[in-house]
Amino acid sequence: MEELLKFAPRPTGAGDMFQLLRDGHPRTRADLASITGQARSTIAARIDLLMSSGLIAPAGEASSTGGRPPATFAFNPAARIVLAVDLGATHARLAVTDLASNVLAETDATLSIAEGPDVVLGWVAENGMQLIEKAGRSPDELASVGVGLPGPVEHSSGRPINPPIMPAWDDVDVPAILNRHFRAAVLVDNDVNIMALGEHRTAWPDVTDMLFVKVATGIGSGIIADGDLRRGAQGAAGDIGHIAVPNAGDVPCRCGNVGCLEAVASGLAVATTLEARGLSASTSGDVVALVRSGDLHASQAVRQAGRDIGSVLAACVSILNPSLIVIGGIVAEAGEHLIAGIREVVYQRSLPLSTQHLRIVASQARGQAGVLGASAMAIDHVLSPQAIDALIV
Amino acid sequence: MEELLKFAPRPTGAGDMFQLLRDGHPRTRADLASITGQARSTIAARIDLLMSSGLIAPAGEASSTGGRPPATFAFNPAARIVLAVDLGATHARLAVTDLASNVLAETDATLSIAEGPDVVLGWVAENGMQLIEKAGRSPDELASVGVGLPGPVEHSSGRPINPPIMPAWDDVDVPAILNRHFRAAVLVDNDVNIMALGEHRTAWPDVTDMLFVKVATGIGSGIIADGDLRRGAQGAAGDIGHIAVPNAGDVPCRCGNVGCLEAVASGLAVATTLEARGLSASTSGDVVALVRSGDLHASQAVRQAGRDIGSVLAACVSILNPSLIVIGGIVAEAGEHLIAGIREVVYQRSLPLSTQHLRIVASQARGQAGVLGASAMAIDHVLSPQAIDALIV
Repeated sequence: MEELLKFAPRPTGAGDMFQLLRDGHPRTRADLASITGQARSTIAARIDLLMSSGLIAPAGEASSTGGRPPATFAFNPAARIVLAVDLGATHARLAVTDLASNVLAETDATLSIAEGPDVVLGWVAENGMQLIEKAGRSPDELASVGVGLPGPVEHSSGRPINPPIMPAWDDVDVPAILNRHFRAAVLVDNDVNIMALGEHRTAWPDVTDMLFVKVATGIGSGIIADGDLRRGAQGAAGDIGHIAVPNAGDVPCRCGNVGCLEAVASGLAVATTLEARGLSASTSGDVVALVRSGDLHASQAVRQAGRDIGSVLAACVSILNPSLIVIGGIVAEAGEHLIAGIREVVYQRSLPLSTQHLRIVASQARGQAGVLGASAMAIDHVLSPQAIDALIV
Repeated sequence: MEELLKFAPRPTGAGDMFQLLRDGHPRTRADLASITGQARSTIAARIDLLMSSGLIAPAGEASSTGGRPPATFAFNPAARIVLAVDLGATHARLAVTDLASNVLAETDATLSIAEGPDVVLGWVAENGMQLIEKAGRSPDELASVGVGLPGPVEHSSGRPINPPIMPAWDDVDVPAILNRHFRAAVLVDNDVNIMALGEHRTAWPDVTDMLFVKVATGIGSGIIADGDLRRGAQGAAGDIGHIAVPNAGDVPCRCGNVGCLEAVASGLAVATTLEARGLSASTSGDVVALVRSGDLHASQAVRQAGRDIGSVLAACVSILNPSLIVIGGIVAEAGEHLIAGIREVVYQRSLPLSTQHLRIVASQARGQAGVLGASAMAIDHVLSPQAIDALIV
């Protein structure tokens, strides 16, 4: 029963004090002493350390009740930069941001992940360096790199694990390769997790329980619970593409099972269905184009895909009880048909308690969700209390 | 983008320092000053406050490097007691524990939740008082009360919300009723969440991602993710009883839908199936008794229930990626048939990445899971940094 009460004590240092300042509001030394209960001399020493690192900067003087007005200090997001990398199956997007995820420079390109780690990460290194220059900054200012990949990733090591659409990347040490070019911490996660993080931080920061669903060539999701991204035991949480769709029959899936959501309702599955009907569709993009051109079969197929996705999301709602589901990915660009189908089944199949306050909406961050999430992941790592303590000691 | 960086600063007080001591290890004033980085005078004052509350106590002298050996202090779990209340559909179990969930006195009884809040909570008050006396303690020492109820509960208010098997409890202010008898904080949650908490703290404290599944008259689950219980937006997370079972057909469920897990695979559903075959079974307990007596039809029916539960748990595995699923509830007492059926389908239907380290086991806390979880929930509340700060200021 002693196991009942486990805690990991950690010194309360400058890193903890810095977290108080991350909200951007200026504070005096007296404010910080009062909030932390720490000695004025301790606070003064930590302010000096953080000032010399550039992470905080003078922010003018507070109003005085008599005597010389006290100096205030605030977080300085311009102190360093991060490189945000969003790699999809066939596209790549890079951004250089400051420490508050403000985008300083951005680029994207058509690039197949199947070209392998040497080609793709070589491209990232070359274009990343150019982008840092374009932003008017120096590689020395780079604090960290955040990378999203279109497959399962062991977040702790930054290695892809048996990634189906990028077999050449299996167990590749992505941080080690990028560290040949960048002297900075490299954080890696799958693309849907960083999209969930980007959407959450930019559009829904006050929502504590949210599910982000990407509907594209494949289908996946990222889970925010109690305000944080949840990765599960092996980083595979949110991998909903291979859940069985009720009454889907025995459509074969590339995973070896039958009736998986991805085999029935992904952009690729819809394209295959439409092609069998004689329409010209081989990719998710073709499906979106057909719907936008007003093709009735395409609209109906996307709506049915929405219903099938809805039948799996109904289970997600019962399990996770989110207050928000955000639908992103290229198929979501086909307009309301997809979300209409999803809503239809989720509201029919879930218990009233779970759906009474549930919203189902389209992504707001859209194409930028990935880089914004990669930036947030990279920033969280370098501004954690532990990282700050290590940086300035 | 300023929204990206939100933090809620809170004074670092005696409550934070107390958390360091909750592991039970004795520490000197110098240890605490070194760990927290706070002034010795601050530490000394906080030690005095916590000593006068009784929450910490002298724990002998540390070894000295010369001079008078310094005094050490440790958490004193005997300082207060909590009352743990586990209410099921037809049973009630009470325990008085110390602040480390050590059971000091315990009792249980047959009691129908359908008797309503006045009768049931009256029984809790009367028997709770007797149990405190039996433990040789006084009601004045009661720090908090933890209650588990067999239905959806809004954890923040302690009110049941549209509970199907206990309609008379809808929106009842359980804490207010118990506060007529006990002058202590009352925390309420649904029974499966407290069972998950009890099982996690006592049997699997180092597992970060775990799902606890109760299979009894109904079916529900409690989710531990990143080490903590996750309740979702309305406290309904883990409510898996009404997820559609793939290919289950149109078995009607009391919720108004068809093909729900609970309608197909709960103890009650299995009893109904067996009764239709001429066997004498009307409750989950009857099903367990038949299996234990060696009845082949009953064993087969329980195994099939396991497969149906497994088909829903396969979805849970894809969504949550736990490293452990614990099966509890009375039907789990029927031996290996239930878990064998669950394993069969989960390992067939989930992706290899999610199941390579997944264990599926029977509950270890068994009948005590509920009271141990209620105790842990009650203790966590009164020993939180905020609560300690409020207590001793």
